Amino acid sequence: MDKINEIKSYLQENDVDAAFITTPDNVFYVSGFRSEPHERLLGVMIFKEAEPFVICPLMEVPDLKASGWTFEPVGHQDTEDAWEVLAVAAAKRGVPLRTIAIEKSHLTVERLERMEQLFEGASFQRLDEQLNKMRNIKSEEELEKLRKAAALADHAIEIGCKEIAEGKTELEILMAIEFEMKKMGAEKMSFDTMVLSGPKTASPHGTPGDRKIQKGDFILFDLGVVYEGYCSDITRTVAFGEPSEKQREIYETVKKAEQTAIDMIRPGVKARDLDKAARDVITEAGYGDYFTHRLGHGLGISVHEFPSITGTNDMEMEEGMVFTVEPGIYHPEITGVRIEDDVVVTSDGVEVLTKFPKELQIIKP
Amino acid sequence: MDKINEIKSYLQENDVDAAFITTPDNVFYVSGFRSEPHERLLGVMIFKEAEPFVICPLMEVPDLKASGWTFEPVGHQDTEDAWEVLAVAAAKRGVPLRTIAIEKSHLTVERLERMEQLFEGASFQRLDEQLNKMRNIKSEEELEKLRKAAALADHAIEIGCKEIAEGKTELEILMAIEFEMKKMGAEKMSFDTMVLSGPKTASPHGTPGDRKIQKGDFILFDLGVVYEGYCSDITRTVAFGEPSEKQREIYETVKKAEQTAIDMIRPGVKARDLDKAARDVITEAGYGDYFTHRLGHGLGISVHEFPSITGTNDMEMEEGMVFTVEPGIYHPEITGVRIEDDVVVTSDGVEVLTKFPKELQIIKP
Repeated sequence: MDKINEIKSYLQENDVDAAFITTPDNVFYVSGFRSEPHERLLGVMIFKEAEPFVICPLMEVPDLKASGWTFEPVGHQDTEDAWEVLAVAAAKRGVPLRTIAIEKSHLTVERLERMEQLFEGASFQRLDEQLNKMRNIKSEEELEKLRKAAALADHAIEIGCKEIAEGKTELEILMAIEFEMKKMGAEKMSFDTMVLSGPKTASPHGTPGDRKIQKGDFILFDLGVVYEGYCSDITRTVAFGEPSEKQREIYETVKKAEQTAIDMIRPGVKARDLDKAARDVITEAGYGDYFTHRLGHGLGISVHEFPSITGTNDMEMEEGMVFTVEPGIYHPEITGVRIEDDVVVTSDGVEVLTKFPKELQIIKP
Repeated sequence: MDKINEIKSYLQENDVDAAFITTPDNVFYVSGFRSEPHERLLGVMIFKEAEPFVICPLMEVPDLKASGWTFEPVGHQDTEDAWEVLAVAAAKRGVPLRTIAIEKSHLTVERLERMEQLFEGASFQRLDEQLNKMRNIKSEEELEKLRKAAALADHAIEIGCKEIAEGKTELEILMAIEFEMKKMGAEKMSFDTMVLSGPKTASPHGTPGDRKIQKGDFILFDLGVVYEGYCSDITRTVAFGEPSEKQREIYETVKKAEQTAIDMIRPGVKARDLDKAARDVITEAGYGDYFTHRLGHGLGISVHEFPSITGTNDMEMEEGMVFTVEPGIYHPEITGVRIEDDVVVTSDGVEVLTKFPKELQIIKP
């Protein structure tokens, strides 16, 4: 319940009467309760001067308790108006609700209008930046989960490499990877697994399909695993058979760009300088036009979270931040290559969570 | 572009200056353009008295054109403020924007606040009910896609039945089904495929795992396929080896409940009466406490869409509505059984889209 207390302190310091948090990832972050209620109401209400509660569908109350929630559980049934149940539970606290902090980047207009009716006269302010700030710095407990998610992702790449064979389709390799991951206890993949081969590697957002692996292909794996609620995200590109000189040049350029950015990571370095360092390596090698996306993104409970590692973000890195470093070159005639690691900023540098080798792996046909 | 014109007519009839639609499913519905831009801005702006435009990331403009969009494409780059680009494109139309219709059940508070800044003095109203009303009635073209999605789902159940064997795990069967579906050209599954066996069938929202199939198990498949943007959703429960008398009783009760509801479907019948008819059959058989969810839900571009087939919804059925009928009995000691079909309301009755047999299938061990 540390996160609950941290938000309570925030409310006290900023003289805000309550916070209402409704996105499943943030509910999980502050309460430890993981639920996907779809259109049903799920939320944590935290007060400046009263005990918090979680509101959720009645049938999920046992799961809420099992997750370790020791404050009041407020269940609502499909036959009730869940918002009325919320208002009653909040009123029971007997504290004034003049200012309420909400997640403005997630809460819908319809839900805000409902809250404006129920908490008449209240003003609503942003909690988004406070939540981003908290989630941005990972605790040792969170890092341990991220390390395990990363180790599973490493293993997934290993399986993918072993599955490569002439005539096998991208989908066959993909299914073998996902099957092994589920067997090893991964809750689920962090996102749709990508296995792209040959010319398809040149598309940063391609879809795996029936294309059969051929000698001379590069094969790009982009995948991640959720472990105890935390995500990994890794990309490796490997060669099936001896690569051409140009293919090798592109690979080595991406590898150098990635390592250059990683080597710069420490507290105080700016996100935009990391992006620039990697981009400069690629531009100097003459492939600047083929690196068409940002360097990386924050990683944690969500596979894409705050902050964004872009050329326009002058945020300084701090100890405990976790993000991806993933430069790529997408050349339609030669090959696409992307290399992606998950990293954590340490007190004096960086720890790389994903460990699958980055020397070009050449799979023998 | 029929849907664009339909919304334009709505704006004219209701004297609303413009509509701005931003949910990917509704953008696809009105424009034919399927995109998942995550946090990037995607939207269709439709005017009472000017040409519409789609705003999307610049790199997606070629896909937008390829999808058949013949009006203006407005691309924005990551280095620009997409909302400023929107305001400029809207201003270029030279029409006043005093009232703007938005999807209040989806648009975030942050996005509305941005629009309030950009379109100063404008008032914002709901477009949600109009979109629900339109999506609720499927065209023949949409029905054709839903039929194909349903046929793929039938085939998936067939594969699942063939894969059943003593000692095989739920996950092994699941992966075999999904692999075949992808090979057959399904874009993706509509939701996480469910293969539950033995006591796990008694959980309406169970997770497939390592449990090995045993003689005497019931096996429950709940799955769906996306075909050209449209979803199917089917459930079948089959027996592995000769069922007990009680298992058979539960199966036949669910089957009768489902058929009773289906036989009532025609224009004019109320959603709540369908729910009640199925529930009455189950209650009369003594299993009322074990049917713990609504009868069904609308189906189309989204796997769960308007309307909800519940005991409290007095909406009348109309020709062209598509929804699921899926009663279940979840008995922790005997077995769980759910049977689910996708149906469309016709001029004088019902067409059942999913066709896999509903007589209890007994797989020989």
